[in-house]
Amino acid sequence: MAVFDVERAADVIHDGLFAQQHRGQEGAGMVVSDGQRLQLHKGPGLVQEVFPGDRLVDLPGRLGIGHVRYSTCGGDRAQNIQPLLAECADGPWAIAHNGNLTNAAQLRRAYQQSGSIFHTTTDSEVLVHLLADPYYRSRIHRVGRALAELQGAFAFVLLTPDSILAARDPHGFKPLVLGTLGQGFVVASESCAFRPIGARYLRDIEPGELVTINRDGLASYQFAEPAAHGAQCVFELVYFARPDSLVFGHNVHQVRVRYGMRLAQEHPVEADVVIPIPDSGMSAAIGYSRASGIPLDMGFIRNHYIGRTFIMPEAGKRATGADRKLSVLPETVAGRRVVVVDDSIVRGNTARKRIALLRECGATEVHVRISCPPTRHPCFYGIDFATSEELLAAGRGVEEIRGSIGADSLGYLSEEGLLEPFGAGGPRFCRACFNGDYPVPVTDGRGKLALESGLTCESSARAAATRKGAS
Amino acid sequence: MAVFDVERAADVIHDGLFAQQHRGQEGAGMVVSDGQRLQLHKGPGLVQEVFPGDRLVDLPGRLGIGHVRYSTCGGDRAQNIQPLLAECADGPWAIAHNGNLTNAAQLRRAYQQSGSIFHTTTDSEVLVHLLADPYYRSRIHRVGRALAELQGAFAFVLLTPDSILAARDPHGFKPLVLGTLGQGFVVASESCAFRPIGARYLRDIEPGELVTINRDGLASYQFAEPAAHGAQCVFELVYFARPDSLVFGHNVHQVRVRYGMRLAQEHPVEADVVIPIPDSGMSAAIGYSRASGIPLDMGFIRNHYIGRTFIMPEAGKRATGADRKLSVLPETVAGRRVVVVDDSIVRGNTARKRIALLRECGATEVHVRISCPPTRHPCFYGIDFATSEELLAAGRGVEEIRGSIGADSLGYLSEEGLLEPFGAGGPRFCRACFNGDYPVPVTDGRGKLALESGLTCESSARAAATRKGAS
Amino acid sequence: MAVFDVERAADVIHDGLFAQQHRGQEGAGMVVSDGQRLQLHKGPGLVQEVFPGDRLVDLPGRLGIGHVRYSTCGGDRAQNIQPLLAECADGPWAIAHNGNLTNAAQLRRAYQQSGSIFHTTTDSEVLVHLLADPYYRSRIHRVGRALAELQGAFAFVLLTPDSILAARDPHGFKPLVLGTLGQGFVVASESCAFRPIGARYLRDIEPGELVTINRDGLASYQFAEPAAHGAQCVFELVYFARPDSLVFGHNVHQVRVRYGMRLAQEHPVEADVVIPIPDSGMSAAIGYSRASGIPLDMGFIRNHYIGRTFIMPEAGKRATGADRKLSVLPETVAGRRVVVVDDSIVRGNTARKRIALLRECGATEVHVRISCPPTRHPCFYGIDFATSEELLAAGRGVEEIRGSIGADSLGYLSEEGLLEPFGAGGPRFCRACFNGDYPVPVTDGRGKLALESGLTCESSARAAATRKGAS
Amino acid sequence: MAVFDVERAADVIHDGLFAQQHRGQEGAGMVVSDGQRLQLHKGPGLVQEVFPGDRLVDLPGRLGIGHVRYSTCGGDRAQNIQPLLAECADGPWAIAHNGNLTNAAQLRRAYQQSGSIFHTTTDSEVLVHLLADPYYRSRIHRVGRALAELQGAFAFVLLTPDSILAARDPHGFKPLVLGTLGQGFVVASESCAFRPIGARYLRDIEPGELVTINRDGLASYQFAEPAAHGAQCVFELVYFARPDSLVFGHNVHQVRVRYGMRLAQEHPVEADVVIPIPDSGMSAAIGYSRASGIPLDMGFIRNHYIGRTFIMPEAGKRATGADRKLSVLPETVAGRRVVVVDDSIVRGNTARKRIALLRECGATEVHVRISCPPTRHPCFYGIDFATSEELLAAGRGVEEIRGSIGADSLGYLSEEGLLEPFGAGGPRFCRACFNGDYPVPVTDGRGKLALESGLTCESSARAAATRKGAS
Repeated sequence: MAVFDVERAADVIHDGLFAQQHRGQEGAGMVVSDGQRLQLHKGPGLVQEVFPGDRLVDLPGRLGIGHVRYSTCGGDRAQNIQPLLAECADGPWAIAHNGNLTNAAQLRRAYQQSGSIFHTTTDSEVLVHLLADPYYRSRIHRVGRALAELQGAFAFVLLTPDSILAARDPHGFKPLVLGTLGQGFVVASESCAFRPIGARYLRDIEPGELVTINRDGLASYQFAEPAAHGAQCVFELVYFARPDSLVFGHNVHQVRVRYGMRLAQEHPVEADVVIPIPDSGMSAAIGYSRASGIPLDMGFIRNHYIGRTFIMPEAGKRATGADRKLSVLPETVAGRRVVVVDDSIVRGNTARKRIALLRECGATEVHVRISCPPTRHPCFYGIDFATSEELLAAGRGVEEIRGSIGADSLGYLSEEGLLEPFGAGGPRFCRACFNGDYPVPVTDGRGKLALESGLTCESSARAAATRKGAS
Repeated sequence: MAVFDVERAADVIHDGLFAQQHRGQEGAGMVVSDGQRLQLHKGPGLVQEVFPGDRLVDLPGRLGIGHVRYSTCGGDRAQNIQPLLAECADGPWAIAHNGNLTNAAQLRRAYQQSGSIFHTTTDSEVLVHLLADPYYRSRIHRVGRALAELQGAFAFVLLTPDSILAARDPHGFKPLVLGTLGQGFVVASESCAFRPIGARYLRDIEPGELVTINRDGLASYQFAEPAAHGAQCVFELVYFARPDSLVFGHNVHQVRVRYGMRLAQEHPVEADVVIPIPDSGMSAAIGYSRASGIPLDMGFIRNHYIGRTFIMPEAGKRATGADRKLSVLPETVAGRRVVVVDDSIVRGNTARKRIALLRECGATEVHVRISCPPTRHPCFYGIDFATSEELLAAGRGVEEIRGSIGADSLGYLSEEGLLEPFGAGGPRFCRACFNGDYPVPVTDGRGKLALESGLTCESSARAAATRKGAS
Repeated sequence: MAVFDVERAADVIHDGLFAQQHRGQEGAGMVVSDGQRLQLHKGPGLVQEVFPGDRLVDLPGRLGIGHVRYSTCGGDRAQNIQPLLAECADGPWAIAHNGNLTNAAQLRRAYQQSGSIFHTTTDSEVLVHLLADPYYRSRIHRVGRALAELQGAFAFVLLTPDSILAARDPHGFKPLVLGTLGQGFVVASESCAFRPIGARYLRDIEPGELVTINRDGLASYQFAEPAAHGAQCVFELVYFARPDSLVFGHNVHQVRVRYGMRLAQEHPVEADVVIPIPDSGMSAAIGYSRASGIPLDMGFIRNHYIGRTFIMPEAGKRATGADRKLSVLPETVAGRRVVVVDDSIVRGNTARKRIALLRECGATEVHVRISCPPTRHPCFYGIDFATSEELLAAGRGVEEIRGSIGADSLGYLSEEGLLEPFGAGGPRFCRACFNGDYPVPVTDGRGKLALESGLTCESSARAAATRKGAS
Repeated sequence: MAVFDVERAADVIHDGLFAQQHRGQEGAGMVVSDGQRLQLHKGPGLVQEVFPGDRLVDLPGRLGIGHVRYSTCGGDRAQNIQPLLAECADGPWAIAHNGNLTNAAQLRRAYQQSGSIFHTTTDSEVLVHLLADPYYRSRIHRVGRALAELQGAFAFVLLTPDSILAARDPHGFKPLVLGTLGQGFVVASESCAFRPIGARYLRDIEPGELVTINRDGLASYQFAEPAAHGAQCVFELVYFARPDSLVFGHNVHQVRVRYGMRLAQEHPVEADVVIPIPDSGMSAAIGYSRASGIPLDMGFIRNHYIGRTFIMPEAGKRATGADRKLSVLPETVAGRRVVVVDDSIVRGNTARKRIALLRECGATEVHVRISCPPTRHPCFYGIDFATSEELLAAGRGVEEIRGSIGADSLGYLSEEGLLEPFGAGGPRFCRACFNGDYPVPVTDGRGKLALESGLTCESSARAAATRKGAS
């Protein structure tokens, strides 16, 4: 996120990042400008770990940017935590990136050939080199020119000593919203960051738009044509964003309730109780219960002392995290036919364990309902599903998946169902993870560790995609 | 909690305490016996902070006890964290205590007069002195004799190098459950600790019962007559325990759903949507929605990166914690008549803020429903409501409370409603916090800092009660 | 040490402990009184580690006591770090102890039999129980009565909310000095603590004397007759104390220079250069060079980033510490006959290695001169030589020792030499470590872990003595 | 330092850096290669703080480089700690630098103009950019070509995945020595690093020499003509190096003893005792005593729990450090005429305080003897004297200095005296700090913060020189 002309920018960024903590738990950082120089603090861990109260005092200033880091297993080195800070010939720049560039490796190689040095293994670092390149440096609308070189998914915020900038890729993969705070401005990935800091939602940053904010106010440029067929990430609505955010102009919770209602129409079942997987399946379960008339009840209890599992970096931690996170309420399910609602099945291990647990606790039937289509293809634009091999649904029919997880029935929302809540003029989604139809070709070595070869000489055979969290 | 004859007792206790983390977040500790000597590790903070993975390796053994600490503001000194460890003439003892003794100050004064030295300001420490006292040391059933001297609320677990013991006060204020794990045994405050460690619920420890478990198996003694009119803490069911626990033989979630249903009968209202305060009001909201037919929806979103507010030690932290914890979903409440369901109102500050926020987000009416009667009297047996002055309902009628928090209507569950789910043979509850009828007289200086006078010479005018968390 | 009526007692104690850091590096602690209550902070490590600057701010008050902890391998548990703090019937007491009690185990056993509970495995804790005992509590001159029960070596400082007390055992084993600081008072083990805090040396606390200092000024009591044949620890002068301290009324450096001169007379040798072991042998080497006319030079260089070896708790650390601590200067010793001067040989391993290293660097002859007699007997009064088996000189003649360490010649100062600097009216020393003539019988299980049996049930076969550092 | 083909390179580098800890205490770091990839660990503080034992386990490999950081107040940012690590088009490089480049700012500016990005404010970083530059990358003897662009003082060690390199500037300002360790090689700033790791001194790296060591053995190149009039830093001999090192082929201690002897001839005085400032003046004091016949004695005692003062980053810490570091031994100086020997006077504050303290303790006369000429000019090659304004001797005659520090007489070693120990064929020294005759012109903005402008936009008016510690 970015803020301009606010009291104690560091405190505001802190609270905004904290509200967006669900977007990345591996690291956090911010750069604040006192009008002349940029000061950076970042580190691994949660926002509250990286910024204990007194740390913020050392970061005076009225403008700055912040970031929470998500993903990049194998590549979770400290220097990859953002914002990145660099000194160009005309002064310092800080950047934070959400999304995944698809031509970063080519650009990186070209810059390295001409003598440039890279310090991280993130794709984001190429933007720094473009900004430092004399060719772009001498251009009018330099930042826009540099951004136009990038392909893939990106929402960027940038900071100079006296301005903030924000840009969104021409396909609009990633959400990026603009708000006002007093006389100042705020940019964030999700609008849920606005209320806790007292900001008001103004509008989305548009695909292909660059916004610059400085003493003279806000100016908007179109650095690239919006892609004819936009490609907004539907998974943000399905899974990633917080229910109280506006994403692509729609309230996330309400969209999910609609998905649940549609799911009840597409995949009805005779059952005694609808139970959500907390908290990811809650909204859709409310919708399913509402449309089906089957009563909603709590069948799983969440231990609040563990963070979100899906987003943790190592496979090992995932397993342990899942075990301790949810407990079954036997009294709810014993002797009953249960409909379990969740937002997605990725690897399937967790689903399998939970279904077995429900049966162990006496459920007579377990019907699973998922509020999106089967995720069969990896994402190269910023969601960390890992590789095709790890996706349970890749190359498998629904019946096979059902058997694998041990459910009595399994129903996924249809692709049409995904679009229903929006009507004709709604967002154009990227649905590559469901149908393999990638809106931007992926030319780079595909995978999260694609850029790791340099400093660590690891095998490039590992192929998970590098992605970043929320700016 | 206590475990006997299990593989890696330290790991088992860790997982059991983790599942009971909601019972206390100020400190955690455990003592493990390798059959000959007792090793202690404890510290301030959450279980996962006090016991990072590798710490557990240093605590070998097949039996041990553990504790999470709750409350005692003003008195949150490190040495008060339990278990307490002491060497008597016949060897070492460790104890952990849940509840609040009402005659600790007298016993303490008597022991000090005879030359004994106290190292904590907890009430629990008097049991150590009783056990060390030659009078009791020479008695058959020494522990039972010592326990019989205590008044008030207590669930104790004790550890010697080769045995564990567990006892519950004659009124049965606090829950204490017994389970089996393989060939071994487990004792815990709540049964939710059992599933994650693979244990099975056997039965409750009874009021006035002392259970000893050693190489020769389990033995049970009645160290005191069960009180004619038991006094189990109804607030455990209303608020404190986890929904998936069995407390006093009843599933907590189901009791709360029943409370919500009854509440809908006692305090019906015309409205558009029922929203719970997550997660404390969830079960009752399901019940209210079910009985009233008003649809349930999510009106508040919880930030999962903050722990439970009610239980934090300092007033200051409470305020901040509440602000960042819940966000409103304006789309759910705008233009609607809203029923908000929660389990209790203590000071009222949080309720007032949230109601205002709902109106700000467009709610046309806000009706508050609370799944217990007004809490008008302080608890001296182990729940930290603080003092009467801090309790909003103390000395106020419901209408006055409604005005104070700014609701359009306010309905509390009746005392009869509290009993309804259990029928004739149900538990006998302590309801002192609702009606001021204290089942055990409180003779000590009433308050959390009652025993602080010694080492710190603080004013005894401060009067919140000392309490401890889950063993 | 103890201070009374000084600005910011915590700062003064910090600086005084820092100057006495050589007396103990395992732990440090202090208790400060604000006139009403006592506040404690202590922990393992060096003074600067335990008390980072800002810690001291939290300890307001004008009086207090402090301690640095020395020794106790096996028993280096956190709770053994001093001062000890306890609440008696008449209020809180804090104590800090330098020395080693010889009847602690008996007293401890007696108190345990009567129901008292011990929380440390130090001998010092028995004084707390004596002070809490109603028998002594009711006595006039209670503290003196309690002290009179103790046998062995002790220098105690005590703190109540409004006074400090200081006492020295009747034999005067351990040094204890009294000074003034502005209108206030200071008590310390060594006078080197005085200059950095701006205090002035007044006099020694006398054997058998108890000094109390409160609002009414200083009062002195003789709680026990001074022992007819005093027994001051000569090893304080030889090794333990800092060169700039006054110990038993004599400057340590000057005494050591005299020892070096006498050593040159007792054990002359033809050689080219005298080299000290830095810094322990420096003073005596100056004396040896001065009396012999053989030039002094630096043959060893000390790495200043390692602390004093002798005093570290574990055998393992000792070995490593020694290796990295000193480097030879080959240019000083190559082709030369070298006299190496040090203050003592304990286990002999270090001496052996260093002599070998000198030869490797080209020394043609290595003559070792030690400024005290052979240490053949363990100390039970507070110096941690470990057991007889570990003492190289135990049961060995000088010639055998010489062979063992590989020197060309070896000369120890005679017992007469030890006394020479003082003349007829000089101090009466304890020389038990040289001649086995123990001035106070040792009735307890001899050894550092003698009191460990309780909480940890370790074998009592381990037999090193429990000792404490400087108060 | 650098090592090649040794068991557990990380352990060896650790021990070597530890022996060179006196060369820099602000930070430490190392990069180790396992033959394929480079792994970095570095941080602020002492070697033992940055590398607790278990850290080293994570750095497997048989070759690597390490560094301890010295100086750069204002610029002591974490990213300036070395080694620096960078990925060029042809793979990763790590470098560590001792000394100060005088044309770094120009090179930096040029690279920034062409689009390069800098991440530190150290001068050393320009070498990374030279190595990445396609012009040099395509050259035979690329590293030599790159090094030839640099001006000023440098001793560099470099690491690639399979080789180490070492180079020394053509003037030979900084020491750099080569040794063997088993079948492998070691390069270090000072030979004192060799003995603790079991290495043997082979020879100095020569001015203008580049040594490369890889699987094929050691190769030597002359990347630049040695400067006609070499300029070795005489302050290394006078002050900086450890007494047991060979610097420029001479044992440091012996040279200092000779300086002390010469000082006695140049500035004789009638006095009773010669006392060194420990430990910096010890060698020269031995020489002074030897040549004058005045007995040497200890007049100051050093507290071993404080590190070396001169080298700490902040002025504030210097002051406090000095106060607690030395105590006077009044018994040595009272009633005596004292000669105090030290190696230098920089700001004069410490000298003034110590002389006053000696008089307070009863010294009747205080004569100060300094084993080098007055330091009147700042160093731009790597010693942190700070600015001219801070140098007491800048623009002042000896008599004025004497008055300022309050000595009865003051004698400095002459420039001729500095050369005496070496005779005709000895080293050619840089003596700029004494006579202002700078062997390499300083064209950059002079000062330690010269390169700070970028990221922090601080005023360039601050003018202390950037310098680095030992490699």
